Amino acid sequence: MSVVATHHVDYYETDAMAVVHHSNYIRWFEVGRVAFLRKYGISLNEMTEDGFSFPITSVDAKYFEPGRFDDNLRIETTAEALTRAKMEFSYRIVNAATGDLLVTGHSQNVFTSLATGHITRLPEKYYSRLRIALAEEQNAEEEAK
Amino acid sequence: MSVVATHHVDYYETDAMAVVHHSNYIRWFEVGRVAFLRKYGISLNEMTEDGFSFPITSVDAKYFEPGRFDDNLRIETTAEALTRAKMEFSYRIVNAATGDLLVTGHSQNVFTSLATGHITRLPEKYYSRLRIALAEEQNAEEEAK
Amino acid sequence: MSVVATHHVDYYETDAMAVVHHSNYIRWFEVGRVAFLRKYGISLNEMTEDGFSFPITSVDAKYFEPGRFDDNLRIETTAEALTRAKMEFSYRIVNAATGDLLVTGHSQNVFTSLATGHITRLPEKYYSRLRIALAEEQNAEEEAK
Amino acid sequence: MSVVATHHVDYYETDAMAVVHHSNYIRWFEVGRVAFLRKYGISLNEMTEDGFSFPITSVDAKYFEPGRFDDNLRIETTAEALTRAKMEFSYRIVNAATGDLLVTGHSQNVFTSLATGHITRLPEKYYSRLRIALAEEQNAEEEAK
Repeated sequence: MSVVATHHVDYYETDAMAVVHHSNYIRWFEVGRVAFLRKYGISLNEMTEDGFSFPITSVDAKYFEPGRFDDNLRIETTAEALTRAKMEFSYRIVNAATGDLLVTGHSQNVFTSLATGHITRLPEKYYSRLRIALAEEQNAEEEAK
Repeated sequence: MSVVATHHVDYYETDAMAVVHHSNYIRWFEVGRVAFLRKYGISLNEMTEDGFSFPITSVDAKYFEPGRFDDNLRIETTAEALTRAKMEFSYRIVNAATGDLLVTGHSQNVFTSLATGHITRLPEKYYSRLRIALAEEQNAEEEAK
Repeated sequence: MSVVATHHVDYYETDAMAVVHHSNYIRWFEVGRVAFLRKYGISLNEMTEDGFSFPITSVDAKYFEPGRFDDNLRIETTAEALTRAKMEFSYRIVNAATGDLLVTGHSQNVFTSLATGHITRLPEKYYSRLRIALAEEQNAEEEAK
Repeated sequence: MSVVATHHVDYYETDAMAVVHHSNYIRWFEVGRVAFLRKYGISLNEMTEDGFSFPITSVDAKYFEPGRFDDNLRIETTAEALTRAKMEFSYRIVNAATGDLLVTGHSQNVFTSLATGHITRLPEKYYSRLRIALAEEQNAEEEAK
């Protein structure tokens, strides 16, 4: 079961083809990721105060249909994998009015120490919340079968 | 042999981690792609006037080291594949001062008719130039061996 | 009486000072302007189809307090002046949680013919709606006295 | 005599009207400001390390002609005023090929302590360099008469 965020396409997000510039979806994956973490009690601000950052190490996207100015989008974010050192998400961005699938994608982020700049093991405080998030998702998927 | 473009990191391209926001590299892949096409005599403006667009259908990126404000970047773009309907590129973004590899990636774009919105076969005018581009790259690679 | 739009500050809108980059507020003025027009039955897409554009001719902003990641902002847009050739708006962007005033500003846009690229007189269809908008605002202001 | 920076308009800087989105010029004013400071030996990174920031307190822009994809722009930045607490710049953005004036503008920035977040007096180290910058500009203007 994915966490849903919404985004209304603003004019400044279009390009000269009169469609959403493709780089914006990479930004909206981040919006989805942040919404996912927030739902499970994790704020990037709190992580920063605790000395952690969560930089992205890879991202990919497939583009099916273009979004346009004034579209209402639904950003669906699913946790795909979790270890103490990294986390993977998948994304679907859908036109909320028509249900058309616009973009899919994946990302991997790592837990990093702000002090050393290196990958670090996430402390229990955060890890336990994220394990709950993954378990809920897997239960929801099994029930959906 | 790749086509090289340069980019100086502006302040507005950084984020609260004091590094380049990762979505910008997706934009700079586009800068590299445009520079590649220009080198072989193809301008997006001319393609638009001729009734073609060149939308992206997929992109991926791997992030190795962060870029920072005031860095001079080198965007290296290589053509990987070409048919009459689509083209693939790979990218390397490097810190020009240190030589450090920051980001690698790939993209696929398709040739589309502005009139129909559908994928179309690229006319000889453009296709021949792009075939020359690919041949030059392959020759350069063989010579480098 | 102003028209209110909301915006949640996303991570990619921050800069290396860990605050919202100042150029984003100029974008959010546009969000406010679009919300204002929409409330009075005017969509930019419909204007485009009718052969009009609404380019900006001037903008100014004063910055009082910085916005930050995860802030919920309220964008208040007020119509200040209207002729058949141009329209002026003022803006206030406020932190919705604290009520702190972050940014104020003004803009002027002109009605332009897409065919000629020149300033044109707005047809009655749109002008009448915008006159209603201005009248409502003035009534609301007088009642508030 | 202004300090000149250059910018090539990338595709992602256009909007659905097929012109440069107006918010980008505000960003390019910053590019001009940074180029001005660099010419006189001041880097934002060094200021940050010394505990200062240089936030913007106001900006305005007038738009005359639109920029378009692939345009080469010249950003001309002039120092207009300097005290130990603030600095004002003016800007002209010109199409480098045609000489057409696209945008003019002004900004005010203040010197702020990163420790306190408040406006502070700029130390001699920076102030003396900026006074030289202003004096050079005024001399150049008088010579030009």
